This record gives sequence, structure tokens and C-alpha cells, in this order.
Amino acid sequence: MLNRYREEYFINLNPIQAGGKTNSLIRKVATNFVDGYSICDYCAGALHRIEKPPVCKLIIDLAKFLGTDEVVLTHGAREGKFMVMNLLLDPGDVIIIDSNRHYSTYVATEGVKARVYEVPCTSYPYFEITPDAYEETIKEIIKKEGTSPKLALLTHVDGDYGNLTNALEISSICKKYEIPFLLNAAYTAGRMKVNAKELGVDFLVCSCHKSFGIPGPLGILGISEKYKDIFLKKSEKYPKKDISLLGCTSRSASTATLIETLPHLENRVENYEEEVEKARFFVERMESLGEIKQIGVKPKKHDLIRLETPFLYEMGLKHRKKGYFLYEELQDRGITGLTPGQTKWFKISTYGLTWKQVKYLVGAFEEIVHQETNNF
Amino acid sequence: MLNRYREEYFINLNPIQAGGKTNSLIRKVATNFVDGYSICDYCAGALHRIEKPPVCKLIIDLAKFLGTDEVVLTHGAREGKFMVMNLLLDPGDVIIIDSNRHYSTYVATEGVKARVYEVPCTSYPYFEITPDAYEETIKEIIKKEGTSPKLALLTHVDGDYGNLTNALEISSICKKYEIPFLLNAAYTAGRMKVNAKELGVDFLVCSCHKSFGIPGPLGILGISEKYKDIFLKKSEKYPKKDISLLGCTSRSASTATLIETLPHLENRVENYEEEVEKARFFVERMESLGEIKQIGVKPKKHDLIRLETPFLYEMGLKHRKKGYFLYEELQDRGITGLTPGQTKWFKISTYGLTWKQVKYLVGAFEEIVHQETNNF
Repeated sequence: MLNRYREEYFINLNPIQAGGKTNSLIRKVATNFVDGYSICDYCAGALHRIEKPPVCKLIIDLAKFLGTDEVVLTHGAREGKFMVMNLLLDPGDVIIIDSNRHYSTYVATEGVKARVYEVPCTSYPYFEITPDAYEETIKEIIKKEGTSPKLALLTHVDGDYGNLTNALEISSICKKYEIPFLLNAAYTAGRMKVNAKELGVDFLVCSCHKSFGIPGPLGILGISEKYKDIFLKKSEKYPKKDISLLGCTSRSASTATLIETLPHLENRVENYEEEVEKARFFVERMESLGEIKQIGVKPKKHDLIRLETPFLYEMGLKHRKKGYFLYEELQDRGITGLTPGQTKWFKISTYGLTWKQVKYLVGAFEEIVHQETNNF
Repeated sequence: MLNRYREEYFINLNPIQAGGKTNSLIRKVATNFVDGYSICDYCAGALHRIEKPPVCKLIIDLAKFLGTDEVVLTHGAREGKFMVMNLLLDPGDVIIIDSNRHYSTYVATEGVKARVYEVPCTSYPYFEITPDAYEETIKEIIKKEGTSPKLALLTHVDGDYGNLTNALEISSICKKYEIPFLLNAAYTAGRMKVNAKELGVDFLVCSCHKSFGIPGPLGILGISEKYKDIFLKKSEKYPKKDISLLGCTSRSASTATLIETLPHLENRVENYEEEVEKARFFVERMESLGEIKQIGVKPKKHDLIRLETPFLYEMGLKHRKKGYFLYEELQDRGITGLTPGQTKWFKISTYGLTWKQVKYLVGAFEEIVHQETNNF
């Protein structure tokens, strides 16, 4: 019954889906561990200590892969962000975040009752978060509050424009002001090389269902040595149980699939340059179709692409299906992931598509545009 | 590679596994939704609003199934307990919990820095949490603290002895003292009939990977009308996003499998009496084997069984494999789930086994005992 909602035979352009697509090996592992608590068959007192399958080795390998001192598994990036805020902030404390942050970053600040200062982005059409603006906002906070914010958060690549921020420069600024620095790498770690140490990051949050090609919910929180005692504090009565993890977090097949996929991720991130090339190629060809414009920093450094498409909007006005023509025409060509009816602008990702598929995609848009133009 | 750790061809006696075993239909749905965010293909602004697949209908049906006013999905029972404590308690506030509670209950109290009073259980061999002891502890708190605890938690069936507590009577006591009442139904809801309204429960937490026969991590938190505003508070900037859920929780295949399984659960809980019969039969036959004794309240009202087995321990002392003989002999007969080496006592569950399997299990123990006895 539920089958019909799935889109495995489609090219799915939805940016939140692109990096979470599984391969057949991952599907097999997920099925092997599908039963309730099956990852815990050989429980060793806590999830990260399990030796069969080797979760304990996974934790060590992840720390190496991400360049962090400590690693814990979370249910996702948002849960990692909440954990950091909850452990470092008291109600009323000030946090600085970038204005391109994911909504869940903002909601997490509400959850811990923090007071928020947002770093503004540059104006249309780039919407860039610059190190200068970040430092300006810190200075403004110090001026108003008399003290630095208790925590700084930066979105490595945001979900609106796919802009890659300068994490290294911003982490250096935060170091200067002695502010713990949290990098939300949900759209980067697992896709491209992210090394917490090299970027000067105190806390790194990752989303495995967004960017590691495995089923969710699963996330990773990388923690620098300095904060180990706060984050890995054990229960007084249960010395194997981490308080911040309530003992164990992702007691599910997702953890088993992460073990399976990690050795392949080195390769995956090595090849990210080609993903960027595909995105740039797609943008170039789309912009040549008519009044279509890539929004955000140019040229693209990430696969998430936002296009402003007044041209398609105009076409919809004259179409008997109105704005829905675009969604339906794409659907007919085995392409999905756009919001039905949306034509003024849209966000897509070309991540993981073959060159053949990218060209097919461009061809599909060309066909739709020309067909419609000829029908006028 | 990971295959070899799975035990699908075994009878798994581990109580945390028994109620989470999936059937082929659930495995199919899990595979359909295995990709990263696939449940969110048609996002409607929040997980519980998704219409394709019908998560929004699931929420309504779950509230009816569990007799609660409101329902939210969580990552598991422990996350539900933490959510309730985090929203209702300030650091230093007093919570009353039963001493048979899961370790994660205690760890969650540490996470919110609450002060804990534990209701003692009766002595060996019953370890029962009685309504009288619960009320006595409340009175003691009032005497010492000058006020009632801010929250009361009761474990419906505990994971050590499988004792079913009198939730109705204890909820009435809590009402009398105006204490919000949280019932941890991780070992009951999904196995047996649990109706929050009929039991006078303000908050009900359930574990789907423990007792709903689906993959984890997934839990349910039922909330009574009275606490709706606190628990379902929306973000100021994002009016569709629940703060306590950070927007969305279990954005995974687990949620899809819960949709699929819920219509079958009515039947599953209706047949629970037979599961209790199997447990009682098993206990009776085991106790007839020698110096073996069921610990906890008798007769069993739940499938989780704790046996004290000094008889098997004595056998191990004389065996060349020492205490490991039991684990290995069972393993040879396709039975797993005991801790290797453990013979003085163990916990098992007969949940979901057919009568034929229960009899096979009893036969296996009889065989091991007699074979070993004859070898002396």
C-alpha cells in the first residue's frame, strides 16, 4: 500500500534527499538489522561499546574521518545542536548564529531559552555570510551585553542557497573572542571533506540521513578534547552510561549501516569536486534558457542550487495547468522533488546524479521550455 | 560481512528483543523507506502533518489506540521521559520514581538535574512496587521538602522482574496530591492494552522498537489535554514547528512502519492473555526441573521472566566449560539471548513464540539438565 508514495524510479531533485540515497549494500544491512533492538544483540553496556557489530571501532574511525577528538552518535544534526546548546547555555544566555541557519537551529535556541543574535548575510542575490559580518555581530554583542556570546554557531553550507561559508576564518575570529564554536556540517560532512581540527571547530554536527547515504535518523556530534568532561559525563549510578546520551542514542539499523558505509566515504568525499562541476554545468545551461538566475554565491561550491525562474512563472500564467505545468512535465519525464505549483524559484540538488542524468535533466528543462514556447 | 552477527534463525530469549521482531510486511515497508529522508518526500511543514504517507492520520489513530488526548513521536521511551522532565522540572526540583525503573529513567533525572526520591519495592523474592509504598514515599517527601514532588513516574512493567504495577491506583494517589503522573509503558503498550485515560495517566511513554514489532528508534509520547500548551508550544518564528520536537523527530522508515503496523496492533494486544499463559507454562516447567525459582510477583502477568537458577550454577562448577555450558548448549539448539557465562540467574521473554516453540524451549532446558546430570 505504502509503496506508491516512494519515488525510487525517479530522479529526485529535492536537496534533502540527494545525499541520503542508499545503495543496495546499505539496504541489505538495514534489512539485516531491521528488528527492534537488533544492533544491541550483544550489548556491552552502551551503544558505543558494542563489539559485535563493531560500533566501538566505528566511533574511533568516525573521529579520525572527521578530525575530532571525541565522537558521539545522535539522532540527527538538530539533536546534536540541541545537545551542545543544552549543555553549554543557561536560559537567557546569548548565542550567535548565522541568519542562513536551518530552522531547527533557531528552534533549538528556543528550546534552551537562549537569546539569539543573528549575523546578517549580504544582500540579494548572494546572501553570503562573511567573516567580517560575523565579527561585527560579535562586537555588537559585546557592546550591548558587556560580554561575548556563550556559544557561536555557523552553518557550513546552508539549505537555502547552498553557500559554503568560510568556517576556518570564522572559527579563528571565535577563538580570538574565546567563544566555543559549533559548525553545522549537515550539508557538507559525508559529501565533502570536513576536518574539525583543520577548521578549528569545537563542536561538529553531521546528519547521516542527509549526507552519508544511509537511512535515518542518525547524526554525529564531534567534540574537542576541551569539552570532553562536560559532554561525556557519566551517570553517578551507572558508570557506563553517558548522561547527555541518556545511555544510548541510535539503537537501530542506521548505526549498522554507518559501519558499512564509512570505509566508502573516503572515496565519496574525494570525488566531491566532480559534484560541484555538475552543479556548475547545470546552472550554466539553465541560465542560458531564458530569464533564469542562480541565487547565492557564484560560482557554486556546493551541489545545492537555488534558481530564480521568473521565465517559468510567466509561462505558467499562460498555461491551462497554471504553475503546475512544470511539476507535471518533469514528473512525466521521471523527475521529481520540486514543490507542485512552484515556478518563481526553486531549490534542487544534482548530487549523486551521473553526468548522463545531469544532461538528461538539462534536456528535460530545455524540452519543456521549448515545447511550451512553441505552444503560445 | 555484518550478516553473521544477526540471529534471525534463532529463538532469541532476550527480553528487549522479543516485542520488536518484525514481520515480512514491516521489512518491506522499511526497505521502501530506507533512503535518508524518504518519509519526508512530501513534507507538509512538520512530520506529523505529512499526508503522503498518512503520518497525520497515524497521530490521530495512535491517540485513539492509547487513549491519550495528544500524541507526539519521539526517538524512544527514554527520549519521551527526558522531554517530560525537561519541560516540567527545573534543576533541583523533586521527582518521585519507582526503584524498579529502567536505568534511562534515572539517567534522564540526572540530565535535568532533578532530585530523586525512589519508592522502595517489597523484599525478595517479589520486588513489588505497591501503591502503599508509593503513597508513603510521597508523604515522606512532603514531610522533608514541605511540598509534593513536581513529577511522579511509574514503570508499568519493569525490565528486571517483569512485574506489572497497579498504575490506576498509583495514578489516583498522584491525583490526590496533585502530582503530574508519567507512566513508562515501554514493556506494555504495543504488547497489552494500555489506555492512558482509563489509567488516569497524564503522560504515557511507549517504545515502538521494544513492543510494537517495528524497527527503531521510535517512541510515542501521549499527553493529556491539560499539558498540551506546554508540550506542543510552537516556535515564534516557525509556527508549524514544535519546539519540544525541534520541528520533527523520527524522520525515518520507522514512522512508515508504524503506519503499517498500527491496524494490526488491536489484535496483537487482544491476544496478550495467551502470551501470559505461555510465560506461566514456561515458569511452571522450569521450576519443576530442580532448584529453579521465578523471581518477582507470582503468577506472571507479563512475558518477561526472571529465574534464579542456583541449580544451573552448581552444574557449571563441575562442567569443563564452566558457566558457559548453558549458553553453548542453548546455542547448539538454536536458542540465544542469554548472557554467555551467566548461570546463577537470567531474564528471558517468551513473547511472540508459538506454543510449539515454548515447548521446544522447555524441552531444550530439560535435555541440557538431564544430559549434564547423567554425565556426572
